[in-house]
Amino acid sequence: MAEAGEFQIIEKFFTYQTFGAWKSQGVGDDCAIIDTGAGRIAVTCDMMALGTHFLPDADPEDVGYKALAVNLSDLAAAGAVPRAFFLSIGLPRRDDGWLADFSRGLMKLARESGCALLGGDTTRTPEVEGHHAPETISITAMGDLPAGMGLTRKGAKPGDDIWVSGTVGDAYAALKCRWGAWSVMPDLEPALFARMDRPTPRIALGQALLGAASAAADISDGLLADLGHILERSGVSAEIEWEKIPTSVALQSMTPARQHEAALAGGDDYELIFTAPPSSAERIYEAGLLSGTPVTRIGRVIERTSRAVTVRTPDGLPVLLVTEGFDHFRNEE
Amino acid sequence: MAEAGEFQIIEKFFTYQTFGAWKSQGVGDDCAIIDTGAGRIAVTCDMMALGTHFLPDADPEDVGYKALAVNLSDLAAAGAVPRAFFLSIGLPRRDDGWLADFSRGLMKLARESGCALLGGDTTRTPEVEGHHAPETISITAMGDLPAGMGLTRKGAKPGDDIWVSGTVGDAYAALKCRWGAWSVMPDLEPALFARMDRPTPRIALGQALLGAASAAADISDGLLADLGHILERSGVSAEIEWEKIPTSVALQSMTPARQHEAALAGGDDYELIFTAPPSSAERIYEAGLLSGTPVTRIGRVIERTSRAVTVRTPDGLPVLLVTEGFDHFRNEE
Repeated sequence: MAEAGEFQIIEKFFTYQTFGAWKSQGVGDDCAIIDTGAGRIAVTCDMMALGTHFLPDADPEDVGYKALAVNLSDLAAAGAVPRAFFLSIGLPRRDDGWLADFSRGLMKLARESGCALLGGDTTRTPEVEGHHAPETISITAMGDLPAGMGLTRKGAKPGDDIWVSGTVGDAYAALKCRWGAWSVMPDLEPALFARMDRPTPRIALGQALLGAASAAADISDGLLADLGHILERSGVSAEIEWEKIPTSVALQSMTPARQHEAALAGGDDYELIFTAPPSSAERIYEAGLLSGTPVTRIGRVIERTSRAVTVRTPDGLPVLLVTEGFDHFRNEE
Repeated sequence: MAEAGEFQIIEKFFTYQTFGAWKSQGVGDDCAIIDTGAGRIAVTCDMMALGTHFLPDADPEDVGYKALAVNLSDLAAAGAVPRAFFLSIGLPRRDDGWLADFSRGLMKLARESGCALLGGDTTRTPEVEGHHAPETISITAMGDLPAGMGLTRKGAKPGDDIWVSGTVGDAYAALKCRWGAWSVMPDLEPALFARMDRPTPRIALGQALLGAASAAADISDGLLADLGHILERSGVSAEIEWEKIPTSVALQSMTPARQHEAALAGGDDYELIFTAPPSSAERIYEAGLLSGTPVTRIGRVIERTSRAVTVRTPDGLPVLLVTEGFDHFRNEE
């Protein structure tokens, strides 16, 4: 097999000239933004599996919570109000304890966010060598958008500021600590692990950014990768100042190399990364305050250059990374 | 684990008092019928896997076609106009040949039905004992409904006629023939196998039944099982005349026992089964003519009795069956 990633698969096999009565924008975005004729909705879907997106022994309540959270994060990136979701779940066997815990975590976030479970499908996972494949979860989430509104990855312009919500790198650092590859002081562990297990979709912030931000994405693949998606779709480049990137106390306790790796390449943060003209800075800070979500200006959009993103330390040196954002098919041989 | 089927899992773990701004009816139905405030839409989702819903070596073009067809069939059962779908696909490895064929079959039906692919997700299937789980496909399909309209499983009334579209039992008979358990004359095989590989969602018929039928479902689990869902949700029972059930020439060439098994318990037909007051009979026949889909009256809704469905042969004897509709978790020990 030739080297090829997830994005290449979608682009090569599932990208078509649009047709039909519902007009959509945002193919390749976090959400499809669709005008149904009656109104504008945002729709996103994600497939996750135990052993791929979750540790095989993950707490099912966390699995339920996070499975919905990552979809709500996509809606947040579009600025949509979550309204409904649909759940398909493949199970290796019926396990009432697992299902009850999974459902509790799922519905906790569903209620908190006003996003109702309106349908679904359950099936037995397929068998491999006499064993059933692990739990596989597919969620499609839908939300409302005001007519003519909605954030996509396209729209960043040279001169725009680049912003990020919350702190980045924690989920990746937590995974490294759980694997035993990295470590952190025991009293910092619970908060760090919670960032991996129960990410907070930035729903209110996303809505508050409508009309203020020029482009947005959520950080699922890593800050550089997801910013890269914005830059590519917008035809621009970016300069980031490393020391402005917001990181947690736990991450700051680690070596600079680990901080770089986690904050820039680590993913699974579900923070929003977005661009906005400098004239919107006041509105952005206000959006952060109103939504209770810290927002930080980390860099600037520039005219397109040969390099998509340059990250500099205070001494002006570029930050070099050994890894890149996660792609399920990147390391295919 | 206690004996419990797919419907019990949904009922026990994923059925909640509704909340949120979008009002839905049809939980437990083929589709959710949702009033978004701006308009009414129908949404359905299905998860399928090679080795569970498809033979492990199924032609990927057929897999793509059928994966969408079963979702469009759910929209047809609600009377909705298909507009958009979202695809999540888990792949054991990147296989460009498989993907190209799958996509071709999928998009053929998408274009024919005006249902656009507006988003999706791809992921690597999880590993089991060193092997990746087979292809897993989850589709969420959406369609338009006129305000206040939409067919559900609820609404059948005593005295209503029971109707079915097309012929039933072919897909099941085809599977039995492919397994080598049953056989059919070679010249009848292609048409029989096509019914299993490329089912025809009854989209135009479903829309034509709006305002004429009192309840509807598509036949995915088997005629008796899906009629059973209508009867249970409507609080009624039914009497079916076996000799009126429409079957193909291929099925008619088989023994009566096999005909009974395939037509009544066999599933995977994706025909519509629906009820309507006798006063609508003219409109139903017209709907069949306009949509180019044969429709047949096979029985009558009666007041609820201890038995959900009674199927009688012309001599008045009840038809007895050894099997029931398919349920992924029914045979769990």
